[in-house]
Amino acid sequence: MTVTLSATLAANEDIERRRRAGERVLHLAFGEAGLPVHPALRDRLAAASGRNGYGPVAGAEALRESAAGYWSRRGLPTDPETVVCGPGSKSLLYGLLLALGGDIVLPMPSWVSYAAQADLVGSRPLLVPAPPGEGGAPDPDLVAEAVRAARAAGRTVSSVLVTLPDNPTGRLAPPEVVARLVAVARELDLTIISDEIYRDVVHDPALPYTSPADLAPERTVVTTGLSKSLALGGWRIGVARLPAGAHELRRKLLAVASEIWSAPAAPVQEAAAYAFGEPEELVERVALSRRLHGAVARAVHRSFTAAGALTPEPQGGFYLYPDLGHLGRGGSAEITKLLLEEHGIGVLPGHAFGDDPAAARVRVAVSLLYGTTPEQRLTALTSEDPLRLPWIADSLDHLARGLDGLAGGRLRQPG
Amino acid sequence: MTVTLSATLAANEDIERRRRAGERVLHLAFGEAGLPVHPALRDRLAAASGRNGYGPVAGAEALRESAAGYWSRRGLPTDPETVVCGPGSKSLLYGLLLALGGDIVLPMPSWVSYAAQADLVGSRPLLVPAPPGEGGAPDPDLVAEAVRAARAAGRTVSSVLVTLPDNPTGRLAPPEVVARLVAVARELDLTIISDEIYRDVVHDPALPYTSPADLAPERTVVTTGLSKSLALGGWRIGVARLPAGAHELRRKLLAVASEIWSAPAAPVQEAAAYAFGEPEELVERVALSRRLHGAVARAVHRSFTAAGALTPEPQGGFYLYPDLGHLGRGGSAEITKLLLEEHGIGVLPGHAFGDDPAAARVRVAVSLLYGTTPEQRLTALTSEDPLRLPWIADSLDHLARGLDGLAGGRLRQPG
Repeated sequence: MTVTLSATLAANEDIERRRRAGERVLHLAFGEAGLPVHPALRDRLAAASGRNGYGPVAGAEALRESAAGYWSRRGLPTDPETVVCGPGSKSLLYGLLLALGGDIVLPMPSWVSYAAQADLVGSRPLLVPAPPGEGGAPDPDLVAEAVRAARAAGRTVSSVLVTLPDNPTGRLAPPEVVARLVAVARELDLTIISDEIYRDVVHDPALPYTSPADLAPERTVVTTGLSKSLALGGWRIGVARLPAGAHELRRKLLAVASEIWSAPAAPVQEAAAYAFGEPEELVERVALSRRLHGAVARAVHRSFTAAGALTPEPQGGFYLYPDLGHLGRGGSAEITKLLLEEHGIGVLPGHAFGDDPAAARVRVAVSLLYGTTPEQRLTALTSEDPLRLPWIADSLDHLARGLDGLAGGRLRQPG
Repeated sequence: MTVTLSATLAANEDIERRRRAGERVLHLAFGEAGLPVHPALRDRLAAASGRNGYGPVAGAEALRESAAGYWSRRGLPTDPETVVCGPGSKSLLYGLLLALGGDIVLPMPSWVSYAAQADLVGSRPLLVPAPPGEGGAPDPDLVAEAVRAARAAGRTVSSVLVTLPDNPTGRLAPPEVVARLVAVARELDLTIISDEIYRDVVHDPALPYTSPADLAPERTVVTTGLSKSLALGGWRIGVARLPAGAHELRRKLLAVASEIWSAPAAPVQEAAAYAFGEPEELVERVALSRRLHGAVARAVHRSFTAAGALTPEPQGGFYLYPDLGHLGRGGSAEITKLLLEEHGIGVLPGHAFGDDPAAARVRVAVSLLYGTTPEQRLTALTSEDPLRLPWIADSLDHLARGLDGLAGGRLRQPG
């Protein structure tokens, strides 16, 4: 077990320090949804403030039933008995790693905490690149190769993880990649962990979405939460959907949960039960946030593309993953430092996500552009044209000027 | 790493099953405070329902400052920078075990989760008996012996844990035992983890209380929370006070926290900041609950003593730890089964707490006797003579009759 402070935390602390010192820094480094709590959820939390019992480790029945309904409406019929709740899907992912044991295949790049968690439980992740320009699912052929090689070397590989859609790349793995990966998982007897916390913030709801659980329900664990779709990150609530027959996995996950966190906060569970029921007012709220994330992500995409960066078009969540290699200014650490120190643009280096440090890829999170006050954020959320709101336009302008400066001013235009 | 469902969970599930089936079972197996949330805390949670940011992993500044004040008022001057918050002190204990590494000395008996957590992080606990009739602190001389022997066998022993006052025994380790243990910890260079979650529910506030942090602040981590004193178990909030110079331990604990649970729920943090500030209305509430726990624990103590069980007098929390060995009816598993199946009394077997299975010791939790509705519990809380409330008197009567039956009816008196 190794314990290291995450690169994300360090980078974010650096940005905050500069901001406190009065520097103008565009904060594009933090994956918080950046939107206010819907009043209906505030009301539910307040109404549940008398709940102080520990309750079942798997989560309150109402919450498990509600989450089961959420998945059933997405074509995944779900028995509430297969649902396990936790204080954030992050804690459930940790619990699953501990319960599954063995090594895990992760996409490269992938969210910082997967590898860090594997490290904490003494498992060695196998980082397998996503297909070029894609993200969230490792290339299925390379997965097969990597797992066979690792097993030949005596390692126990038990699972593979996908993030649909993805952080850091903002891409949604296409159905055919998911299908091929599922076939590999079947062949090599791997459990699939599908982190679907950004599922409801795919920008275009018409984009085809395939969960591995659609194809291989017997070996797929799906996790999600309310931190992205309903901006409840600080409330700490996540849910996992286990395969129907996975009694042993469920037993182990509950044992881990019971010894580390017990259960999510009881009042939060009650509000979450309401949220997973998807009442109209919240469905509308999620639709608005999806529209806002998409509009701002596309604008930021245009800026990076204009600056010559190879940037896969963002499809979900609030992230982009530009490659600034064309500038010839070093790898991800160097370009991150340059962006921050010389142009006041705070991003995270690709290597924090397990990517090749020599590549000049960085992760850009757009959600802190929506405003600095709840009022600004709410205005952005309901705006037909958020890019014209002065605080967003101003940030986008800061970004364009910074990228222009980074590229040596060659993009500068009069006016 | 081994993953097993805790004996507590299994026993509690068995009791619940019997109750659902219509059996009359006195539920003395669960360590929930059994009291309602104070209205001021409900108001604070509701007022904080708009808080949805992740916030710092160590906890919001207001909460850390408030917790620092709480300890400072108890003779432990505390810098808020040394405070780390978590979703329950249980999660912090897990994080500390992971961050400290090495094996830990635990009192025998001790709370079920310590050994289970050690197991999860791959550490082997050294169970060292508390002095006879005591609990919460292992016998200092035996600790020295055990650590020396383990080290001689090549093991790394890095810490020792105390619970002040104790679950399961309800005893508070006397100052001289704490002092001797601190001396041993200094000599053998052990970090001391002092779980003080029951500190404010020592029944008699005049009982001398010594925390190892009073004597060895440089090597003691104190943990506490609001689940026992203010009955907020389901809200999931705990705090740890680290030694002032323990930068490396703090860094590691924060890294673990950041990868597993992030932080306690943000609205809960705000309510907890209010609670640790100890406003008069909450101080009064804690005093009332202390009085109630003491009154009922003493009544239950009289029942067990009358039945001939050797039962150390309870001093804090809501637990008793009778030894029913005089009946010659087997060890802790057998006596627990007998109590449940033949007399409708649900307790936990001592071996679940690491005790010798051959000893007929069981843990009795009295807090679920206070009532089944919030109204009953509130009435019990404010009553000058809770033992006369019909639902409590009735439960105590059920207990006395059950113990009488267990003893073969030799205590039965006319009327």
